[in-house]
Amino acid sequence: MSTLKLQTNYLDAYIGQDELLLLNESVKSIHEEMHNKISTGNEFLGWLDYPLEDHSAELEKMLEIALEVRNNAKVFVVIGIGGSYLGAKAIQDALSPYFRVDESLPEVIYAGQNLSGRYMNQLLKYLKYKDVYINVISKSGTTTEPAIAFRILRKYMEEKYGEKANERIIVTTDSEKGALRELANEKGYRSFIIDEDIGGRYSVFTAVGLLPLAIQGYDIHAIMHGVKDAAIDLSEGDVITNQAYQYAAIRQLLLTKGFGVEVLASFEPALKNLHDWWQQLFGESEGKGLDGILPIAASFSTDLHSIGQYIQDGKRFLFETLLHFHEVEEDCEVPYDAQNKDQLNYLSDKSLNMINDIATQGTAMAHVEGGVPVMSIEVGTLDEYHIGYLMYFFMKACAMSAYLQGVNPFDQPGVEAYKFKMSELLGKNSEVRK
Amino acid sequence: MSTLKLQTNYLDAYIGQDELLLLNESVKSIHEEMHNKISTGNEFLGWLDYPLEDHSAELEKMLEIALEVRNNAKVFVVIGIGGSYLGAKAIQDALSPYFRVDESLPEVIYAGQNLSGRYMNQLLKYLKYKDVYINVISKSGTTTEPAIAFRILRKYMEEKYGEKANERIIVTTDSEKGALRELANEKGYRSFIIDEDIGGRYSVFTAVGLLPLAIQGYDIHAIMHGVKDAAIDLSEGDVITNQAYQYAAIRQLLLTKGFGVEVLASFEPALKNLHDWWQQLFGESEGKGLDGILPIAASFSTDLHSIGQYIQDGKRFLFETLLHFHEVEEDCEVPYDAQNKDQLNYLSDKSLNMINDIATQGTAMAHVEGGVPVMSIEVGTLDEYHIGYLMYFFMKACAMSAYLQGVNPFDQPGVEAYKFKMSELLGKNSEVRK
Repeated sequence: MSTLKLQTNYLDAYIGQDELLLLNESVKSIHEEMHNKISTGNEFLGWLDYPLEDHSAELEKMLEIALEVRNNAKVFVVIGIGGSYLGAKAIQDALSPYFRVDESLPEVIYAGQNLSGRYMNQLLKYLKYKDVYINVISKSGTTTEPAIAFRILRKYMEEKYGEKANERIIVTTDSEKGALRELANEKGYRSFIIDEDIGGRYSVFTAVGLLPLAIQGYDIHAIMHGVKDAAIDLSEGDVITNQAYQYAAIRQLLLTKGFGVEVLASFEPALKNLHDWWQQLFGESEGKGLDGILPIAASFSTDLHSIGQYIQDGKRFLFETLLHFHEVEEDCEVPYDAQNKDQLNYLSDKSLNMINDIATQGTAMAHVEGGVPVMSIEVGTLDEYHIGYLMYFFMKACAMSAYLQGVNPFDQPGVEAYKFKMSELLGKNSEVRK
Repeated sequence: MSTLKLQTNYLDAYIGQDELLLLNESVKSIHEEMHNKISTGNEFLGWLDYPLEDHSAELEKMLEIALEVRNNAKVFVVIGIGGSYLGAKAIQDALSPYFRVDESLPEVIYAGQNLSGRYMNQLLKYLKYKDVYINVISKSGTTTEPAIAFRILRKYMEEKYGEKANERIIVTTDSEKGALRELANEKGYRSFIIDEDIGGRYSVFTAVGLLPLAIQGYDIHAIMHGVKDAAIDLSEGDVITNQAYQYAAIRQLLLTKGFGVEVLASFEPALKNLHDWWQQLFGESEGKGLDGILPIAASFSTDLHSIGQYIQDGKRFLFETLLHFHEVEEDCEVPYDAQNKDQLNYLSDKSLNMINDIATQGTAMAHVEGGVPVMSIEVGTLDEYHIGYLMYFFMKACAMSAYLQGVNPFDQPGVEAYKFKMSELLGKNSEVRK
């Protein structure tokens, strides 16, 4: 099979080929505007061609630091919120073992994405007798949650390591401006650059996502290889041949037909954080102008015994996208049991992954019969290359989908609202005024 | 403050007191029918008065086994799907440390809620050199996912421990019938009973939920104390004085006004699994008849930088319920920094939990201004008692809400659809026919 295949055969009852083709003119012209960098939000289109450029020096630098961290730390704390950590966490959780066995690699812990005093208190206790490196990721350095976490953890590092703390703090931030850049220059922290034209939720294949993954020994070259191949494969401005655009167009057609909720579901629990990354990508790009598709995630089988009931029989305003990796390395067989009280002998000697594949098909069929538009994204092997490919597929689809909806895919005005209210209540705004 | 307080002051623009009172007749009569056990689905109303009965012998038996497991195992594997494990996991994750420090207590691992060969393969490797107890939870013993997991893990236990495996397998199932009951009787497994009149998603305060919690040293008496107090406090058939019914009535009014999605959000990341439990409770009880509220969960701050954008500015078909515990034991302060490059000195010496409380308020205000109906559930301390209380509050609210919607809160016909398709594709149905 190809690296990725969008399966739409269950959608015939909802979307005609003619409807899709009618969108092709819009898709083509958006594509041209996007690639000529003249579309709305064009100051954030750097991610489009980034994978085609040569980043080998940057990757080498990450691998060097990764080696150093592995030799000198038990814990690597990544401070960031939203797009500054969801991508790395998604790939990490998709590929790491379900049960931690290899204690030789540093443990990666995320901070700065919540304001829980309990979380931070326990983190400080946990770090007390362990050697630590910190990677703080923030364009401005003043987003409240990561800024607070960094202030607390910087103090911890300076008390623990003195001057040497500066060698254990790595900053990923703007090349020239912002609080974090200033501090890095002053203290001599090593740093990676967040390109000005790449927004948080499109940054997973920059140092934002790749450094934490390199620390854990994931093949960052393979990720970039997948991302690059996707950028090449998905470069046509056509709704039929470009699967990312096809996914985007289908989503927008379903939205206009009253399907305002998309459930991304998969049958491998390790993909849960990839769903979270996807939810941020689409939710923050499209949830605007009192419209857009609400993206929610489901992990099957467990959620089939939860909102599965709702998907099957609830309000008919949702559609489902099944994400399915065909090749999963490890597997297990159902043993034969002479007694067969559980009536499972019809499955004996069958592999769990095979049964899981059939559960995926069965679920699609049941949901289709229940009146849910279902499509699926079939991906090859669960590995770095294919996840990189898939993530770029989603990014390109998301940009096109938001443009088709008529909104800027790259801003997030609604996120400012809570920040402003919170700052006001905390007295920041009045203090600034003083 | 009281143990739990439903705050509705932000709802005035959406729901009048008169509308709420108009529902009171229905609420009263449903309440009567429910407590007289004559309402639809009355064969599953056992949970209503269960907390008022004496279960001390049962609790003692759990505590005895807990002691035995703690002395003889490093891992306690709980096999179950849906309501058979989500309740225990919710309480465990709400109360356990964010970072595992105490290695003296057995680790609790959940299985049988997915069909991933990778998960099971890795679990078997992980268990290889560790002493293990198993708790398999299933009414029938033939639900595919847990039945497969138990067949595999039973083989592992028998190969590892021989005859002694039977002493390390504890069954929670029906008192008389089903595959698991038969096997337990034959092998001499110790067992706990799932009462016939208590369904999976209402079973957290039976042995289904309490045994795994007792193993980990949580105060199961305190949980039952909270549950009992809730059963007493929420015993009036009135939409004003009974807060569970008020929450139910508000939900149904919002549904009729076009708000078909409820976001349950909180600012303590440890509550994520409590949200999953809530989602199962409401989604499986109400997602019926092509109607009902789609329950989704959000964990703030992180999700404010994700679907937070959608909540603020997306389609106006969602309402939000903020879940907020006032007293969280551990905390941490923001340190003073003379340089103040991050401009956070206005927060110095303030506690994170206090800032988090203000973030909760600020978020509510921002979302209200964005056109989202917001209510909040304020709970006292994050501990066993209050979580038990809260869960019973949700159960009673859910039953009332489903009845007001006109559906049976206790069946899940839609879950059968995928099971049937899957079995058909796997060839079970044809084999049975042979």
